[in-house]
Amino acid sequence: MPADLRTAVATVCLSGALEDKLAAAASAGFDGVEIFEPDLVASPMSPGEVRLRCADLGLSIDLYQPFRDLDSTDDARLAASYRRAEHKFDVMRALGTDTVLVCSSVAADAVTDRDRLAAQLHGLAERAGDRGLRLAYEALAWGRHVNTWDASWDVVRRADHPALGLCLDSFHVLSRASEVDGIADVPGEKIFFLQLADAPVLSMDVLQWSRHHRLFPGQGGFDLPRFLGAVLRAGYRGPLSLEVFNDVFRQADPVRTAVDGHRSLLALAEATAAHGAGVDPVGGPAPDLEGTAFVEIATGGDEPGLDHALAALGFARTGRHLSKPVDRWEQGRARILVNRSGEHATAISALAVESVDPAGAARRAEKLGAPLLPRSRAPGEADLPAVTAPDGTTLFFCRPGVAADWSGDFHATGDAADGVGVRDVDHVGLAQPFDQYDEATLFYRTVLGLQPGSTGEFAAPFGLVRSRALADPSRRVRLALTVSLLRRGDWAPGIPEPQYVALAVEDIVAAARAARAAGAPLLAIPDNYYDDLAARVELPPDRLADYRELGVLHDQGPDGAYLQVCTEVLAGRIFVALVQRVSDVDGYGWADTPVRMSAHRRQRLTRRQLSSG
Amino acid sequence: MPADLRTAVATVCLSGALEDKLAAAASAGFDGVEIFEPDLVASPMSPGEVRLRCADLGLSIDLYQPFRDLDSTDDARLAASYRRAEHKFDVMRALGTDTVLVCSSVAADAVTDRDRLAAQLHGLAERAGDRGLRLAYEALAWGRHVNTWDASWDVVRRADHPALGLCLDSFHVLSRASEVDGIADVPGEKIFFLQLADAPVLSMDVLQWSRHHRLFPGQGGFDLPRFLGAVLRAGYRGPLSLEVFNDVFRQADPVRTAVDGHRSLLALAEATAAHGAGVDPVGGPAPDLEGTAFVEIATGGDEPGLDHALAALGFARTGRHLSKPVDRWEQGRARILVNRSGEHATAISALAVESVDPAGAARRAEKLGAPLLPRSRAPGEADLPAVTAPDGTTLFFCRPGVAADWSGDFHATGDAADGVGVRDVDHVGLAQPFDQYDEATLFYRTVLGLQPGSTGEFAAPFGLVRSRALADPSRRVRLALTVSLLRRGDWAPGIPEPQYVALAVEDIVAAARAARAAGAPLLAIPDNYYDDLAARVELPPDRLADYRELGVLHDQGPDGAYLQVCTEVLAGRIFVALVQRVSDVDGYGWADTPVRMSAHRRQRLTRRQLSSG
Repeated sequence: MPADLRTAVATVCLSGALEDKLAAAASAGFDGVEIFEPDLVASPMSPGEVRLRCADLGLSIDLYQPFRDLDSTDDARLAASYRRAEHKFDVMRALGTDTVLVCSSVAADAVTDRDRLAAQLHGLAERAGDRGLRLAYEALAWGRHVNTWDASWDVVRRADHPALGLCLDSFHVLSRASEVDGIADVPGEKIFFLQLADAPVLSMDVLQWSRHHRLFPGQGGFDLPRFLGAVLRAGYRGPLSLEVFNDVFRQADPVRTAVDGHRSLLALAEATAAHGAGVDPVGGPAPDLEGTAFVEIATGGDEPGLDHALAALGFARTGRHLSKPVDRWEQGRARILVNRSGEHATAISALAVESVDPAGAARRAEKLGAPLLPRSRAPGEADLPAVTAPDGTTLFFCRPGVAADWSGDFHATGDAADGVGVRDVDHVGLAQPFDQYDEATLFYRTVLGLQPGSTGEFAAPFGLVRSRALADPSRRVRLALTVSLLRRGDWAPGIPEPQYVALAVEDIVAAARAARAAGAPLLAIPDNYYDDLAARVELPPDRLADYRELGVLHDQGPDGAYLQVCTEVLAGRIFVALVQRVSDVDGYGWADTPVRMSAHRRQRLTRRQLSSG
Repeated sequence: MPADLRTAVATVCLSGALEDKLAAAASAGFDGVEIFEPDLVASPMSPGEVRLRCADLGLSIDLYQPFRDLDSTDDARLAASYRRAEHKFDVMRALGTDTVLVCSSVAADAVTDRDRLAAQLHGLAERAGDRGLRLAYEALAWGRHVNTWDASWDVVRRADHPALGLCLDSFHVLSRASEVDGIADVPGEKIFFLQLADAPVLSMDVLQWSRHHRLFPGQGGFDLPRFLGAVLRAGYRGPLSLEVFNDVFRQADPVRTAVDGHRSLLALAEATAAHGAGVDPVGGPAPDLEGTAFVEIATGGDEPGLDHALAALGFARTGRHLSKPVDRWEQGRARILVNRSGEHATAISALAVESVDPAGAARRAEKLGAPLLPRSRAPGEADLPAVTAPDGTTLFFCRPGVAADWSGDFHATGDAADGVGVRDVDHVGLAQPFDQYDEATLFYRTVLGLQPGSTGEFAAPFGLVRSRALADPSRRVRLALTVSLLRRGDWAPGIPEPQYVALAVEDIVAAARAARAAGAPLLAIPDNYYDDLAARVELPPDRLADYRELGVLHDQGPDGAYLQVCTEVLAGRIFVALVQRVSDVDGYGWADTPVRMSAHRRQRLTRRQLSSG
């Protein structure tokens, strides 16, 4: 990492007790922390013990926060604030930190007059300066009178005290859609601290938005590279520090959250450097992707359904692995490995992408906190660099071309098949663990260089579901990530959501008919769906009849239609979809998700009832 | 139930497949349903089969919904809408329902001109009327041009067709803070349908508010009795139908959700009748409460910690049950039963309230869908009517007075104790199951006649927590209900949140000191808390020293202070708090919740580590 990039994280970002948070921050590679006062107050560690713990972990304490509601039109209340501050200065000395965050007041007695407010801040800065401490004044977006960065800067300038500077928080600035380029004109040495948070663009009360929905940089909708660029151009050289209040992060494993947050800062610094400010700690953009080399499905059981389905879908078993119980299936450019080594529950265990620079892509991934996966290999097998994604999927980086790097691992069977018209893998659908959704999006985006695409929210039979598409700029590698809006409980059946491989075809009806004739277990779609489709979309009657017969789902958008036929869920968790993009529509069939999910749920429940009955 | 009160529920309120929803609605006692189109589209049951299923279940199909974006400035699109509607009319005929909900358009091509819009609606009404069907036109709160009830009424009046009337939805009306009393002037026969939903008062995008946060009547902040009163005064005599989009309900057991929803309609009808409109289906207000008769703690184990703690807290074991392993402990007016019959994991298993009319209170509870609990009694034991709350707690109704109804169940031991100054039970704190929080609040409010009090949201060590207080008007019976803001997952340790009994004392320092001297396991509170308290509140030094020594938590509000001392968690899940309300403050110590939770979590984790290490 470049010497001048220091990273920090506020303890409030992470779940657990203070000791859990500090350990997580250190393990993720942060240089420092902000101590959030309630975390200290609830801790049995004294401030001196916290200082020692941080020193042991190699963490600096960069900020103590927050000090609220300093100023007052009531002199007695101001005096109480000064008294309260002296107590906090004692704590800071014991912690060994020199900067405290002072928020603009939200109280009814907050001072309106800027000179009077500046004088009160000056009085506190005088007390702080006497003890070798500094105040970083921050405009809360919901501050009573001071709620924009330029108002806070005006007050700091009027107060004109060396122990008083600004704290800039990207949420407070960007949630108000404030002008940010002017930040570059603030003298850098007067920006005492920088807090970074992203957020989804929501239309709601800003306090609630801030307290529940903040995200790490790159996970929301704010233009953080522009914001950070302005701060760096101003001359700020302090740490980049995360301050994120997020309901999910508050109850998720803090070690994972910390890794996610640290990655977000590296990716933000990279994006900001691309805009000409600061230094890129990652080292260049993600190498271009040219397609999917293979998708690996792991399944512990020896249920023949998966093989049978692949054969019926037109795949040929073209290879058997030299040393492992792995088969290679091929059709067109689509390659699916079925791994029966039995180490995992059924899942899409790996996705191999074709990269123009596999080694560079792996180095980049490692810099972004995705440690390289040690791969146990038999002699002569391909050495594919690989990392693990947050959802447990292995990502392999291969050279472009027909199985260039890894085909030597397989005995060729000589088998071939006519196929049903599958050209390639269209995309892979990965159901995400509840706690890792935003982490996963950021991971795939930054590590693979994918771009976020359309998103959707659907009423699945047992609760709302959110989906998000990601694709490389050429749209040769696509992913669809799905998560429950709320963590599922006892009522929603606890079987894992299915994952899928979508395969591109030119003629969905021909492909589905051929597959069905070969015995593919196509998913039954209710007649009601086709009655509704007929009401919504004018289709030729024979086309509608074909759809009804074969279970084609038809998602009509303004630019074209996304057509798909799904198999039943196979081996307990996987299905395969044949998809046709009419007019190259950039969709994923989101609108049909509830119908598809209901049908799969019905199939799986029926199977379970049959097997237990 | 009065003959003229008909209840219905939209299938979208409930989780599961269509057959789950219909079964749940019937089992909860609804008279009818609204069929939400996506539920039908995803179902393998044909409309005719749905009709038969509903008939078997005794449910009428009162509405088919929704029909969106009818009108258009583009004649071709209008023609497509009419064509689409004819398909839906076919479905309605097969379902055997005669009314379809037509929403105001949100589309870019929606018609602005009221007369043109009315003409287009008239055209559809003509087609509907020809087939014996009717259109209920509803103003969506986010409709492009029609988004208030009076705008929709203006359009319906202009269209002037017998097959066209209004659908009024309380969310769409009240979310816009519309004037509602004028609804009483609409001719009742032109109100074709009534949909009821409540919602918390939130400042956010109205569409998102509607799609995720609706609640059943009485669970939010809308004045539904006033709204319903106006509709009934207009002469509406159709069903009261629930249409609630709620993220939690969508993934919770539909049978429970349906019971909750049905209860909400009865309570709403009762409240509306109290305002002079409609008929009260419940039969009079909840009888007054005069206090807590007893709290029962069930614990399977024979761990002596609970008995030891009660004794050290000044309780005397005054009775032993005639036929069960149950002890009665007393101090002042506070009575705690410890039940070791071992049928349950440790919990506050029962709360007995003193009611001026126990039999009437039980009848009322039963009318509100809380079935009376069959109680296995030995001969000669008290026959206390009881119901089960959504969180599993049993509620007993007793006559006022010292154990009048139930003391005969116990052998008196003759024991007595000096006590530490406990006067009475102050309140009971019940951690709620994630899926039942809003149901529980409505249940305790309506069944016991409690009023909602303060609410709070806190950062517990492993995620956010929400608390809500309920009390009878005289504040002699108080409850605090707590729930996680998100369902907890793997990281947040899976031990159940503790429940507690808070005991009122006059002098917290004297009581805590006496209890500690007797060996009570008081919870250790960190020194950091007292350093912070000293900074926030000016307290005499010896008072602060007492607090620090004894672990007193001090929540200072504007009207007084709420002081508490907690024991450690006992028998795996329960703690006892001594509480003092300075100046009779109406608080619950919310601000100290994170510190208390952290300390309990530390205690419990330490115990577990010790016991597993």
